[in-house]
Amino acid sequence: MWKSTYTSGREKLHTKSAKDSRELTLHDSPLHVVAELILLLSVILVAAKIGGEISERYLKIPPVLGELGAGILISPFLLGGIHWFGGGALFEVAHDGSGLPVEPQLFFFAQIASVILLFEAGLETNREQFMRYVRPATAVAAGGVILPFVMGFGATVLLGFADTDSIEGMIPALFVGAIMTATSVGITARVLADIRRLDSPEGVTVLAGAVVDDVLGIIILAVVVGIADQGTVTAGSIGVIFLKAFGFWLGLMIIGSIVSRYISNVVLWFKSTGGALVLSLALAFFASAVAEIYFGLAMIIGAYTMGLALSNTELKHQVEGAMHQVNNFMVPVFFVVIGMQVDFTAFGSGETSLGSAVIFAVVLTVFAVISKVVGSAVPALLVGFNRVGAYRVSLGMLPRGEVALIVAGIGLTSGVIGQDIFGVAIVMTVVTTVLAPVFLIPAFKGGSGLKSETEAESSE
Amino acid sequence: MWKSTYTSGREKLHTKSAKDSRELTLHDSPLHVVAELILLLSVILVAAKIGGEISERYLKIPPVLGELGAGILISPFLLGGIHWFGGGALFEVAHDGSGLPVEPQLFFFAQIASVILLFEAGLETNREQFMRYVRPATAVAAGGVILPFVMGFGATVLLGFADTDSIEGMIPALFVGAIMTATSVGITARVLADIRRLDSPEGVTVLAGAVVDDVLGIIILAVVVGIADQGTVTAGSIGVIFLKAFGFWLGLMIIGSIVSRYISNVVLWFKSTGGALVLSLALAFFASAVAEIYFGLAMIIGAYTMGLALSNTELKHQVEGAMHQVNNFMVPVFFVVIGMQVDFTAFGSGETSLGSAVIFAVVLTVFAVISKVVGSAVPALLVGFNRVGAYRVSLGMLPRGEVALIVAGIGLTSGVIGQDIFGVAIVMTVVTTVLAPVFLIPAFKGGSGLKSETEAESSE
Repeated sequence: MWKSTYTSGREKLHTKSAKDSRELTLHDSPLHVVAELILLLSVILVAAKIGGEISERYLKIPPVLGELGAGILISPFLLGGIHWFGGGALFEVAHDGSGLPVEPQLFFFAQIASVILLFEAGLETNREQFMRYVRPATAVAAGGVILPFVMGFGATVLLGFADTDSIEGMIPALFVGAIMTATSVGITARVLADIRRLDSPEGVTVLAGAVVDDVLGIIILAVVVGIADQGTVTAGSIGVIFLKAFGFWLGLMIIGSIVSRYISNVVLWFKSTGGALVLSLALAFFASAVAEIYFGLAMIIGAYTMGLALSNTELKHQVEGAMHQVNNFMVPVFFVVIGMQVDFTAFGSGETSLGSAVIFAVVLTVFAVISKVVGSAVPALLVGFNRVGAYRVSLGMLPRGEVALIVAGIGLTSGVIGQDIFGVAIVMTVVTTVLAPVFLIPAFKGGSGLKSETEAESSE
Repeated sequence: MWKSTYTSGREKLHTKSAKDSRELTLHDSPLHVVAELILLLSVILVAAKIGGEISERYLKIPPVLGELGAGILISPFLLGGIHWFGGGALFEVAHDGSGLPVEPQLFFFAQIASVILLFEAGLETNREQFMRYVRPATAVAAGGVILPFVMGFGATVLLGFADTDSIEGMIPALFVGAIMTATSVGITARVLADIRRLDSPEGVTVLAGAVVDDVLGIIILAVVVGIADQGTVTAGSIGVIFLKAFGFWLGLMIIGSIVSRYISNVVLWFKSTGGALVLSLALAFFASAVAEIYFGLAMIIGAYTMGLALSNTELKHQVEGAMHQVNNFMVPVFFVVIGMQVDFTAFGSGETSLGSAVIFAVVLTVFAVISKVVGSAVPALLVGFNRVGAYRVSLGMLPRGEVALIVAGIGLTSGVIGQDIFGVAIVMTVVTTVLAPVFLIPAFKGGSGLKSETEAESSE
């Protein structure tokens, strides 16, 4: 009985109606689902550490790249999907129609990790420095959004993946443009933390720039989605979206700077073990959820902004050690799951030939690098960085990471873009995400990236 | 557009077919589901800390009781289920038919916490002491399983909640017996850790006893389930179940004591940040999953046994600090979710009158306390504890906790027991779980619980 129950366990994970089968065993319980997922979690953790160790020890590249690579390898589309010895596959695409490479429970765990990572990044940011760099960051982000959008749109139209005769036909091109605007601050933040440059002028500009970039990117996505949905969009609805997005983090920053000391004191009133840690994380989760649910922003923006608001309080010093240990445990899961979202088998499928898909992938990837680097570097030069500093900032803005994957996934699941464009967008995302850390570390060797301290000050 | 999308967000959590609606927004993405759940997680964390702080600071009882109480308060059956101001309820029973008070993502998170908690308890156990006490613990567990099973069965039959004319009719009584045998070591472990008596002879006996208890309890449950399923059960199938269960942890203990040093060395070879922590947890998750999936044991048995196997290695010293911080963050979620599983509104519903349900609840609760205390204390007296020690051990075995709730849940979802018996079982579980820590702390004041050191040694 126990054996037969186990072999049918995987299907039960998805049908979940114990009452129908009338078979009554421990394996019908939600605990059996948990056990299967906790086994996959242990595989993810081991893969993360092996990939990270190989990267750091032998390849001398940041561990995060090894974690991404481990994710690509164990994904349902490669090793994880093989039916070893005729048994079931280790990993399967989630059965809820989301297209995720893991079940929602593991995706949730990975997303919590990204929220905690960005909260910690915010906590460790020097806020005086952030406020000093918010204006150059806005200029950098604007350039790093506009040029990629235009070049992504252009590449899609020029290579015949969109139809310029109607608004409907141009939607795939608009979507590719939206994907191109993304900046994934998580990878850059991890690399800069590893080399202890998170607090440098370039580091703060990139982190602040990624926040602004996300705001602008969401607005573009919202507009593109509006066009796809209604065939048109009004200036008024764009304005409302913009005000909500911008208002959220400006509001949180202003409120944060006024009441952060009181929040810190309230949290530190709690004496029970782990009180400061748990309540800090609760604040981060709350800000993330409010950002996503009520303001249409990415969760990580809420987490980063909350971290920033609390960054000059006593609370920060109380929790940073514990937060670091929680991060050590959870964040590798996030990067492995990002890697698992990459599906190379999707490449060149659909209506298009493999050849034209490959050409599109190469062109879009080159455009993605050029547009983000030029689009970010030119404003950086104008706001006080020298050529070294502008290069560093533009590299920091390069990785598209999970933000682009999510946007591409929305396009795919909605049927707006096909597997061909999705595959191309993924290649672009992987290449930009892998390239950035490889070049970031050498780029940060050497002297100051500012024209001069006084010039940088005066650029405000 | 954004507003209307949000208001339908909750339903989307459960229907999840973005393709059908053709409405194309960010809120169709799995990230919106994550945002809604991360908001609930922040509520759970704040509730946990408020409950824990009130318990510790004002009521002078262990924080875990406040966390349980907070869970009962915010559950879908009390405050969490209220439609404040005409809006949606904060918490709802999971929509997957599992009957859980939270969605599977949060349940998964809570279960990981319980696994880490028991892994840490195993790590912190003195293994020489565990092996010294495994035989008295087995005697204690046997008494603490047999008497509760008999008295639970008897109470159900005597009060007319089962029909003795057929095997089919006696199934509810057998199920109540199985629920009565449970021992939830999590709460006792937390209390003993708080008062630093985890390593005492009584503490080790209770932890080891709970492991054996779980093995015996699972066998009883498997037998009861077998009877319910087939109307009969063979001696052979009981034997197979028993051998698998007992073989698992004996095997892991023996292998663990031989190769644990090598495992420790392999893990410590990893130099990347957090390597030891992540790989230790991966081992704990692996053991938990294997215990549940392949041996039909509870996950926490696998985690505890793995912790025990690694408890005298260098690895232990490398990870215990970090493990403690991870626990501080996650474990409160586990106890709040246990509290949330309590549904007082289920009490007295179904065919039975409220009066007879109340009588059954009172009788079963009194029987539960007497049967576990007497059943555990008598063997404890026989194996070398004095009356003080036997009292401590029997109190430590008293809480039924999540184990009983899970077994009761299996009975309810399978239709074997009704809402009436389920409600009664929950009252019994809550009372025994709440009582144990209240009496445990004063019980552990004062001197040794052993008849004498030599006598305890000779009892082996």
